[in-house]
Amino acid sequence: MSTNWSQRDTRRKTIPEFVEKARALRPALRHRSVAPVSARYQGELLTPGALAGRGLGRGDTVVLDYGDHHVGFITLTLKEEGGPTDAPAFLRLKMCENADELEEDSAQYDGWIGKGWLQEEWLHIDQLPAVLRLPRRYALRYLRLEVLDTSPNYRVLLAGAEIDAVTSAPECSVPPVDTDDPLLRRIDAVSLHTLEECMQEVFEDGPKRDRRLWIGDLRLQALVNASTFRNFDLVKRCLYLFAGLVREDGAVGSCLYAEPRLEVDNIFLLDYSLFFVPVLLDYARASGDAECLRELAPTAHRQLELARQYLGPDGVMEEEGRYVCFIDWKNGLNKQAAMQGVWLYALRQGIDLCRLTEDKARGDSYREWYEQGSRAAREVLWDEERSLFASGRERQFSWASQIWMCLAGVPEQPQAAALLDRAARQDDLVGMTTPYLYHHYVQALLECGETRCAAQALRRYWGGMIQRGADTFWELFDPEDPLASPYGSRMANSYCHAWSCTPAYLLRQYGELLREG
Amino acid sequence: MSTNWSQRDTRRKTIPEFVEKARALRPALRHRSVAPVSARYQGELLTPGALAGRGLGRGDTVVLDYGDHHVGFITLTLKEEGGPTDAPAFLRLKMCENADELEEDSAQYDGWIGKGWLQEEWLHIDQLPAVLRLPRRYALRYLRLEVLDTSPNYRVLLAGAEIDAVTSAPECSVPPVDTDDPLLRRIDAVSLHTLEECMQEVFEDGPKRDRRLWIGDLRLQALVNASTFRNFDLVKRCLYLFAGLVREDGAVGSCLYAEPRLEVDNIFLLDYSLFFVPVLLDYARASGDAECLRELAPTAHRQLELARQYLGPDGVMEEEGRYVCFIDWKNGLNKQAAMQGVWLYALRQGIDLCRLTEDKARGDSYREWYEQGSRAAREVLWDEERSLFASGRERQFSWASQIWMCLAGVPEQPQAAALLDRAARQDDLVGMTTPYLYHHYVQALLECGETRCAAQALRRYWGGMIQRGADTFWELFDPEDPLASPYGSRMANSYCHAWSCTPAYLLRQYGELLREG
Repeated sequence: MSTNWSQRDTRRKTIPEFVEKARALRPALRHRSVAPVSARYQGELLTPGALAGRGLGRGDTVVLDYGDHHVGFITLTLKEEGGPTDAPAFLRLKMCENADELEEDSAQYDGWIGKGWLQEEWLHIDQLPAVLRLPRRYALRYLRLEVLDTSPNYRVLLAGAEIDAVTSAPECSVPPVDTDDPLLRRIDAVSLHTLEECMQEVFEDGPKRDRRLWIGDLRLQALVNASTFRNFDLVKRCLYLFAGLVREDGAVGSCLYAEPRLEVDNIFLLDYSLFFVPVLLDYARASGDAECLRELAPTAHRQLELARQYLGPDGVMEEEGRYVCFIDWKNGLNKQAAMQGVWLYALRQGIDLCRLTEDKARGDSYREWYEQGSRAAREVLWDEERSLFASGRERQFSWASQIWMCLAGVPEQPQAAALLDRAARQDDLVGMTTPYLYHHYVQALLECGETRCAAQALRRYWGGMIQRGADTFWELFDPEDPLASPYGSRMANSYCHAWSCTPAYLLRQYGELLREG
Repeated sequence: MSTNWSQRDTRRKTIPEFVEKARALRPALRHRSVAPVSARYQGELLTPGALAGRGLGRGDTVVLDYGDHHVGFITLTLKEEGGPTDAPAFLRLKMCENADELEEDSAQYDGWIGKGWLQEEWLHIDQLPAVLRLPRRYALRYLRLEVLDTSPNYRVLLAGAEIDAVTSAPECSVPPVDTDDPLLRRIDAVSLHTLEECMQEVFEDGPKRDRRLWIGDLRLQALVNASTFRNFDLVKRCLYLFAGLVREDGAVGSCLYAEPRLEVDNIFLLDYSLFFVPVLLDYARASGDAECLRELAPTAHRQLELARQYLGPDGVMEEEGRYVCFIDWKNGLNKQAAMQGVWLYALRQGIDLCRLTEDKARGDSYREWYEQGSRAAREVLWDEERSLFASGRERQFSWASQIWMCLAGVPEQPQAAALLDRAARQDDLVGMTTPYLYHHYVQALLECGETRCAAQALRRYWGGMIQRGADTFWELFDPEDPLASPYGSRMANSYCHAWSCTPAYLLRQYGELLREG
């Protein structure tokens, strides 16, 4: 995710002891050397060994396939045929997460986010032979190498192109989910690999882009991690980072940079700040780390206090304006009702947090706030005529609103199931764009007991990416519009994105999914 | 110079003790830090300090002017305005030796030599602030920096762009030539700076291109060096390199690589091999280094012996075929007569070498070979009708032929002066392209006593480059055709080229030039 939500001149503060704890938890990365499994040279399929004997001259192009998605550092071993190297070799590299990207022309990029995200390099190599470790990290399955020029006297031999692949996921084999269904097994494996690729010095949102810690992604990553890799220290590190680098009023930021210095971005999305509460609660429950819970509970409570100031006199969250929130990338989405859902959802997590920390008085307040907010949602947002939740002054009907109302527990069973069923039969709802919101849809179905429907959605949506060749799950997937991008160009999209890795969690947490073949 | 003369699979041999001597003479480079003197930003002229405060975003272009030509390593100091750096900064750099190059578009390059010679880089910078020392060496007066993209959240500040300039010329001020004539003083200064820029770990031909040791250039560089910088060790190093890395039959190569390993190229130009004789002789005379003379004289003699095999039954050098030679870049030039001139010229140097080493028997042979060759030239190449030397079966008349016949002493005085005078009044001679041949023209005039004409030629030719803004003298200059290039594109031309630095020698060696205002 990348945004233009930045708030200029936001004053921030640092809590040094929290940052220090986070620093001490910086993980050692696990390294693995990966060689290409096949190569394509002028349309011909070759082994990498055979390619190493083909002299490459002006205009020649090679595509290496590493067989799977990898995150790491590329080392090229280049030799010469003929020679000596009487002019610098001039190469253009393009690193692609999937095969479609190989055909894209970066010269045509017209997105609004930085073109610098496109993974490409131009290299001049003054002398051959040469072993070149490229200094930047890439996310790729394919490497396209174009020889822009050599000289009439020599050609380049590509003797090696290894990836030093890195992750902070432990080297243990997480047992696959207990099913023989090949699609579910594949969805699970791709989910796990997606998370593994995003586990670096922090939980990154995507290893191609934005390569940093977003709390919206962290919440989902931490859920999957707890039931798979169980690298709890990495979750703890991220919690201390968010708690240690906050806005002056204590609001948790939406994203953080680990380099060149630890720094919280000036983006404060209200839903994301509130997610500090469930991330802390989930971590404490899964790890049993009472000390962290005790130290960071005040940060969690602060988010709920701060969010409360945006409630209108009717007890419902204002529309965006004084605050901004994320919810989904869908253009034109009115986020008021969904934001009310997130607020109530976070309050329920807050109530559980108070129970865990035996903070009865605060827990009672949260319960009261929750009851008020839930009632207000039913009174103000519920549309009697359509029997759906509406959002905003213009009474927009969207999937996001129905989903978050369900996750917040506003409609009780069996009304929640009926609501989602009714929503599915509408043809004018503002839809879902991101796997992130799609996860919440499936989770809402599961919590309503709509297992069959959840299994179908999971197979259709994540299975749709598998069908299109995904080795890792994508940042964006709209089955109706494969070229969709919130960035003005699909080229900037990330094809390995943390918020889409949740099937590995859902399939383990809701075992009934496995029985809904 | 760069060529397609390479001889494939030429067996070569190494004389380790010579190479070892060369290695031991590897010079320490002198470093000097150079900051830009002015900057141009969107058409506005600024101080570099003022530029440092201007935030640069997508599409912004800056041109830095370092005030003079420099060879070295660039360090960029980049900061951010706004931020944090939520997308990599993506920059394109272009290093230009002169202002004309700023307007050239490398995408249009269609030359036959490697496009890798064009000095440009594409950089992705993942984090700001950053201090980036670019790993490659450049030759430049101007640096063009284009911000291909940042992000909507930040702009780049160019806080510094220093050149770590390098040379192996000693830090001493060579006294300017003794004249008040501003043009001659400027020609002298630019000549000296040209040589200084080409003095690196070897005498390079050009610091932009080809960045290596060519013996044709070395001969002229050593002449200028002897009367200016007097870094004799560098000449000695180059002599030992050429003598230590030869063809299996002992032929001296035309050019050498110092990196990644010491290696002689597989190009053997006959005129260039013969130039080992004058380079050694000039060095021995200027430095008094008797040991080097004794050790390397056999290498010099071997070049004369090898060249002799290309004499035809008529006593004149064959046309190119069994051998290749350089002479000049002029298209369509027939090189037979000029090659005969170089052969005779080298023999005369060989005779002097024998005198210096008291090798009387060999000196007598050379004298006999010279007399035979000189007579053959007059009989076979002389064209009675036009009173000019002709070259080749097709009897081509060129400047190169007349010049080299004069330098070889084939026409004696005053016939030589008359010949050059007559040549100047023809309108159909194949002309001169390179400052290299132009140097030989001026030298021939001076040796015939045509001082006034030599002074005019020097002012017109080197002064022509000065008039067009040269800070260093160029590889190519054809006043009639400023776009000329032997490489199929002017973009590959070098604008600081050793073989054009000879006025600093001519003006000192032939003091009478200074009095021909």
